[in-house]
This record gives sequence, structure tokens and C-alpha cells, in this order.
Amino acid sequence: MTTFRDRLIARWRDADTLLCVGLDPDPSRFPAHLRSGDDAIFRFCREIVDATADLVCAFKPQIAYFAAARAETQLERLIDHIHREHPEVPVILDFKRGDIGATAELYAREAFERYQADAVTLSPFMGRDSIEPFLARADRGAFLLCRTSNPGGDDLQMLDAAGVPLYQRIARLAAGPWNSSGQLGLVVGATYPAELSAVREIVGDMPLLVPGIGAQGGDIEATVAAGRSADGASMVINSSRAILYAGSGIDFAERARTVAMTTRDEINRFRRR
Amino acid sequence: MTTFRDRLIARWRDADTLLCVGLDPDPSRFPAHLRSGDDAIFRFCREIVDATADLVCAFKPQIAYFAAARAETQLERLIDHIHREHPEVPVILDFKRGDIGATAELYAREAFERYQADAVTLSPFMGRDSIEPFLARADRGAFLLCRTSNPGGDDLQMLDAAGVPLYQRIARLAAGPWNSSGQLGLVVGATYPAELSAVREIVGDMPLLVPGIGAQGGDIEATVAAGRSADGASMVINSSRAILYAGSGIDFAERARTVAMTTRDEINRFRRR
Repeated sequence: MTTFRDRLIARWRDADTLLCVGLDPDPSRFPAHLRSGDDAIFRFCREIVDATADLVCAFKPQIAYFAAARAETQLERLIDHIHREHPEVPVILDFKRGDIGATAELYAREAFERYQADAVTLSPFMGRDSIEPFLARADRGAFLLCRTSNPGGDDLQMLDAAGVPLYQRIARLAAGPWNSSGQLGLVVGATYPAELSAVREIVGDMPLLVPGIGAQGGDIEATVAAGRSADGASMVINSSRAILYAGSGIDFAERARTVAMTTRDEINRFRRR
Repeated sequence: MTTFRDRLIARWRDADTLLCVGLDPDPSRFPAHLRSGDDAIFRFCREIVDATADLVCAFKPQIAYFAAARAETQLERLIDHIHREHPEVPVILDFKRGDIGATAELYAREAFERYQADAVTLSPFMGRDSIEPFLARADRGAFLLCRTSNPGGDDLQMLDAAGVPLYQRIARLAAGPWNSSGQLGLVVGATYPAELSAVREIVGDMPLLVPGIGAQGGDIEATVAAGRSADGASMVINSSRAILYAGSGIDFAERARTVAMTTRDEINRFRRR
């Protein structure tokens, strides 16, 4: 069996990239020729995927964009397309669920059976039994929210929780008792390099999913310096809007490819220092 | 404009009930005559709804049951049915989302436009800006997770957060700076009456959504004593499995009604003490 982590490691090495393209399809920003039709979301994302697959270590569809548009079937088709055409690239379904065990089991079925995701994002707020159903599939992975990139991330995550900030408490749980199977990773925003560095110290070479570069303003050099593991990897650095909407014309996928390549190269420049 | 809270208050008073029926449709537990067909989930839930609507202050569909079964369209139909046939009963969509602002906006659209829910459950973990898009619709409401009924609820929620347990910190935020519009409520499990009581002291007469009676084992007398507001209301007490699966034959909806009535009456007995 190849685990999700094995697949990430292989991809970091073989494709020499830490970049993840986030698939956040917003039809109001699509090029004009893709704004109509029943499957415009699928077609837009497919073009982005096909234009960038060789540059990325993962794709990360954000399910809210599909759910708000009644486009679950297009999400199924999109992930199926990635698996068939780019089988070496794992898919992280960004859905940030967290619920009691019986309900978590259903969300795991949604993510892993219905959508065939390789990994998910989860909220740790409801504790260990809300995570465990996602670890029952040994070949899949889960990234727990730890220090999020939004302004409100401070409200709870920076509270002093029995001596250390709550986000560090979560990092300790995720690196220790909750991770007996090695399937966990953490989500740590690029907008807070000091905290990214603190998390890296706690978790060793655990994979970190790092959103917040690009449109959200995180600095690539600071992010990579703070977040890389000893071997210059163990990060999945996500960019969504800056790549998806790099162009708005017929050549949008080419423009996306150009920005993805520049971003990958910039990340690589700093990870080797 | 009638707010979600106005509608709850009217329902507590006019129908004399704090009971909420949770719609967690598990086809493997349906009566035999409802186990097949493309819309079995809708038909099962519709029978439960029609048999119990006069006994409840709200219905609470749990979206995971629908998503795992590719039954989003059935969820749309179900909520539409409730609004048409039982317009006095508000619908709380249990989906526990929490994401950055732009994504939260899409989840709000999913809940309030696509599904026409009157209120949602949300995770507070990502902070205030992850909640705000849900408050933009002044006639809708949101219940934030505070102290959940599952065993793992302790893992983070009971951590000492700058002097008080994290769940109390959340209650203070929800009752104070986050709730300028009065649209918020909190989710506090019936399995922890002492904590329910602590939350009630912090939040005044804010509505509390209380899962955990019935199959999860919470005691009704202790729950009501701990959670009621001064006027014996301000609670939405949820029961799902104990009502939905009270019977497994052709008379399942009648059996559900009987259990719902007994539960409502038991709650009322204790709220008046």
C-alpha cells in the first residue's frame, strides 16, 4: 500500500515542487467563453489542472465553491479527471469538517468514497474522536487546522491554552497522541511565519499545508524559511486565486501555467538555501 | 422582518415545546418499505416531519447524511417541504462550517439560498471573520459550537484558555463582541449539565441548541434544569435517533410521534419547576 504521505514525498522529490494549486472556481471571474454551460466549473478547472499538473505536488479543491453552485457532480468529475490523467498528483479535498464520530464517518465516506479524495482538511475543535474516522483508511491523509491565515485566526488560536498558545497545543496533539498512524498533517497559514516556524519545531517533518501566499499576501521567502523541514520539503504550499485568475482571456490556462511556474521556482530557490 | 430568534420565541410560546427533531437519515435503519427508490431519504424524512411538526420548535437536518448519499437534491426538497407545509417551524441546517471570509460567504449562500435554511451550526475555531458572512442575512441565525456532546469534546474545549475553559471563552465572545446583531446562539451538549449551566450564566437568555438527549444518553431533567433561561425557555433540545428509529415497521412515523410527544412532555414537566 502507498500512503498519502508516501505519495507526497515521491511528488516533492520526482517533480521537484512544493506548490499546490487550490481549485476555488468562481464563475464571475471565468473568461467569457467559459461563463455559461452546465459544466462550466468542471471545464474551467480541468483546463487549469491540465495546464499545471506537472508543476504541482497536489491539487486542493475547496468544496464550498462547488456546493454553493450545486456543482457536486462537477467536483466528482474533476477529481476523477485528475486521477485518470494525472495519477501521480494527490488531491486534497478542502472541507474543514469536524463532527461527532457517527457523523464524521459519513463525512469520511463523502470525501474518500464519493469524491475519491486522497486527503482532507479537518477542524480539530471537537477532538480526537472527530478525527479518527478519517484515519480508518490507511492510504488517506488528513490536515488539521492549526494556525489559520485569516485575521480572525487570532481569536481562539492565539489564546494561552494551559501555558502555550492553542495552535501549539494542537500541534503537540497532532504530532503526538493523535497521530499513531502517521496520516496527519497540519494547516498553518503563510501569513504568520513566526508561528509556522514554531509549529515546524514541534512536529518534525510532518507535512504542513500552507495557504496564504499569493492573493492573501504571504511572503514566499519568509514562508519557506520558516516552514521547511531539514531536507527542504514537507510543505504543501497553496496558491489559488493568483494562479486561477492570472488571465481572464482565452489564454487563461497558459497564464495560470506561467504564474504557477514562477511560484514553484521561487519556492524552490528559497528551499535550497 | 421576523428574525430567526423571533420565530423561535414564537414557537416556544405558541406550540409549547423546546423539542427539535434531528433529521439524520440512515437508510440502513429505514423500514423495509422505504429502503429503495431514488428518493427514499426524502420520503422517510417527510413522513417523520409530517408526523412530528406540531410537537417541535425546529427541525435540524444534518447535512453529512445527505452528502454521503449524494442526496443534496433530496435535502433541498425536504426543506422546501417543511417551509410549505409547516411554515411556523424553522429549519436549522447542521453543517458546522468554519472557513476564511470569502469561503464562508459561499457556505452562507449554500445554506441560506440553496437550502433556504433559517439557521446554521458553525465552528468558531477560525474566529470572528469566519462567522460574519452568516450574519449578513439579518433574518437568519447561527449556533456556534461551544461545548460539544462527544467524548473528544474535552480535548480542546476544556483546556484552560487564559483563565477560563475554552468553551467559556467562546461563550463570552458569542454573548459579547461577536453578537452585535443578536443572531447568535450556542451549541452545548446535554451530556455535560454543569457546563450547560455555566454557559447559561454567561449568555443570559441566548438560544442554546442542546444535542445529546436520547441515544447519546443525556438526562432530560438535568439538562433542562441546567440550561433553561429565567422564563423556562431559550433552549432547542435535539433528539435524532431515538425518535427517527423508534419503530422499524410500516408504522414508524406514528412510533416516532409517540416518542417525540413523550420527550416534549418530559422536557415541559421540568422546565416549569
